[in-house]
Amino acid sequence: MGGDHAPRAIVEGAVKAVAPPGTPFTCVLLGDQPRVDALLDDLYPSRERIEVVHTTQVVEMSEAPTSALRNKKNSSLVRGFTLHKDGNVDAFVSAGNTGAVLAGATLLLGRIHGVSRPTIGTEFPNETGVCIVFDAGASVDCKPRHLVEFAMMGSVYVETMHGIPSPKVGLLNVGEEKSKGNEVAIKTYELLEKAPVNFVGNVEGKDVLKGTVEVVVCDGFVGNILLKFAEGVIGLLKKQFHDYAKKSIMHKLWMGLMSGTLKKVLSNLDYQKYGGVPLLGVNGVTIIGHGKSSPLAVRNMILKAHDTVAAHLNTRIEESLRTLIEPT
Amino acid sequence: MGGDHAPRAIVEGAVKAVAPPGTPFTCVLLGDQPRVDALLDDLYPSRERIEVVHTTQVVEMSEAPTSALRNKKNSSLVRGFTLHKDGNVDAFVSAGNTGAVLAGATLLLGRIHGVSRPTIGTEFPNETGVCIVFDAGASVDCKPRHLVEFAMMGSVYVETMHGIPSPKVGLLNVGEEKSKGNEVAIKTYELLEKAPVNFVGNVEGKDVLKGTVEVVVCDGFVGNILLKFAEGVIGLLKKQFHDYAKKSIMHKLWMGLMSGTLKKVLSNLDYQKYGGVPLLGVNGVTIIGHGKSSPLAVRNMILKAHDTVAAHLNTRIEESLRTLIEPT
Repeated sequence: MGGDHAPRAIVEGAVKAVAPPGTPFTCVLLGDQPRVDALLDDLYPSRERIEVVHTTQVVEMSEAPTSALRNKKNSSLVRGFTLHKDGNVDAFVSAGNTGAVLAGATLLLGRIHGVSRPTIGTEFPNETGVCIVFDAGASVDCKPRHLVEFAMMGSVYVETMHGIPSPKVGLLNVGEEKSKGNEVAIKTYELLEKAPVNFVGNVEGKDVLKGTVEVVVCDGFVGNILLKFAEGVIGLLKKQFHDYAKKSIMHKLWMGLMSGTLKKVLSNLDYQKYGGVPLLGVNGVTIIGHGKSSPLAVRNMILKAHDTVAAHLNTRIEESLRTLIEPT
Repeated sequence: MGGDHAPRAIVEGAVKAVAPPGTPFTCVLLGDQPRVDALLDDLYPSRERIEVVHTTQVVEMSEAPTSALRNKKNSSLVRGFTLHKDGNVDAFVSAGNTGAVLAGATLLLGRIHGVSRPTIGTEFPNETGVCIVFDAGASVDCKPRHLVEFAMMGSVYVETMHGIPSPKVGLLNVGEEKSKGNEVAIKTYELLEKAPVNFVGNVEGKDVLKGTVEVVVCDGFVGNILLKFAEGVIGLLKKQFHDYAKKSIMHKLWMGLMSGTLKKVLSNLDYQKYGGVPLLGVNGVTIIGHGKSSPLAVRNMILKAHDTVAAHLNTRIEESLRTLIEPT
């Protein structure tokens, strides 16, 4: 029931995920059963590999996370996490209230042993390959120790899910030198030098787009501001091209001819198409989607959840954190 | 002598600034006299409204600011600030080592009464009009009180230099609600509500590009990371279009036809064309330029310095800060 286009986009996405013959998993849809049933009757009458669990409450997009968890025990969100905690499902996917999903995962599933703070990773389009920023908004006040944990979880994630051995880790900062940055960054640099990750030093804002490193570490305050800025870039570009087109009939014709190319290039920069970000550090697999998630994005989130379970990501994260040096 | 293309770009920029008949100011060039003389002989033999002061040392771009100030008393940077402090010049412009310019201005000129931390403002291209982020890197560890000062200095700047009465001020944060953000942001919100500025609440990363407010307040750590990310966006776009062109001969021809339009649109997003950012809060007028400043950017910086002096910006900043509520 979460997300701006629920339940239709969610049901459509789930159908896209499970419909191909041989799909090795079942999708459990939690929501208002009559509405979900009506959509399934329309879209996917066979219901192969689909189950429906009826829930009566909805956590609204702007609702305060803790009160939602306390007061809406029969929401799709709380029921979903409970199913996951009890081992009835292997992963939880939502395009709903991010704060509530984060709080629900942390409180209901609990943290992996050795993790102080869970983290959300967000993939940024860039010039070369994979570049994922940890944290993108789960934790806005971070101590150096937390950032080191993000680096380790992020490294395990990129290694496991993207097949990149020993991914390069950069600390997001205002300059390359070790002495640069605020107090937290300077202390984090020292800890990262000793941590069991491939730490290559400080990186700057521009490096996120160049893909200089595979894992970028920052607190969730900086990461979230950067993510929302990046999401806004496409809007600004569209506006610039639109204004250009308004200058004359010739400009307009010209832009009309160009629009196909522009759309293709800009779609590479579209953060929504990536289809959900992983929440790392909790006892379970949770994929968080944008509220605006399309059916395609929901499908991608479900497939990502399946891949994450299959790769035993959490076992690897727990093993990695066991090697972490003691906090200073 | 500061900047990647010094002294040529600096001398060319200065000549562009003072050459028009009736220019109401004189430009004092500080640097290695034989080299500067040679450039002037070539570019501007009349030397009207140009003076040269010989200096023998150069602060390198990567040099530690405090040691540069201590050990290079005869650098263009230290000599320039000294001339300014002694009242021999009315403003100081540099494309050199930003940290050294910042430290030099703070230590040699001193802070305006009531200012705890000077701030650098950076203009971001956006959909609607003026949007300047304070702080863009002068102060990476900020208390709420510092951010309130940035809001006040920024408001005076936008009002004075852009003629926008009572500019809207937003606090850069991870959500719109008052309760959002890290500890510093939450406390700053409370102070800004009581401060004598037109505070409209929290803004997110995307609002910087939409131009929702004229003044965006954040610490220099966040502001600098955002600025460098934004500077990198053009590089990524160029790369995307370039890759598109490589797909086939037709794609290449197509991109060739489009390149003029693309250049025009992308140049609106080019942060370097803005030509220098003001350092606010010091007893003097200091304009800091990008190390890569072109002659045109240097000219723009000089004109901006002149306008800032003419507008009595610092008197207005001092008056504004006198009204500031006592620190909590």
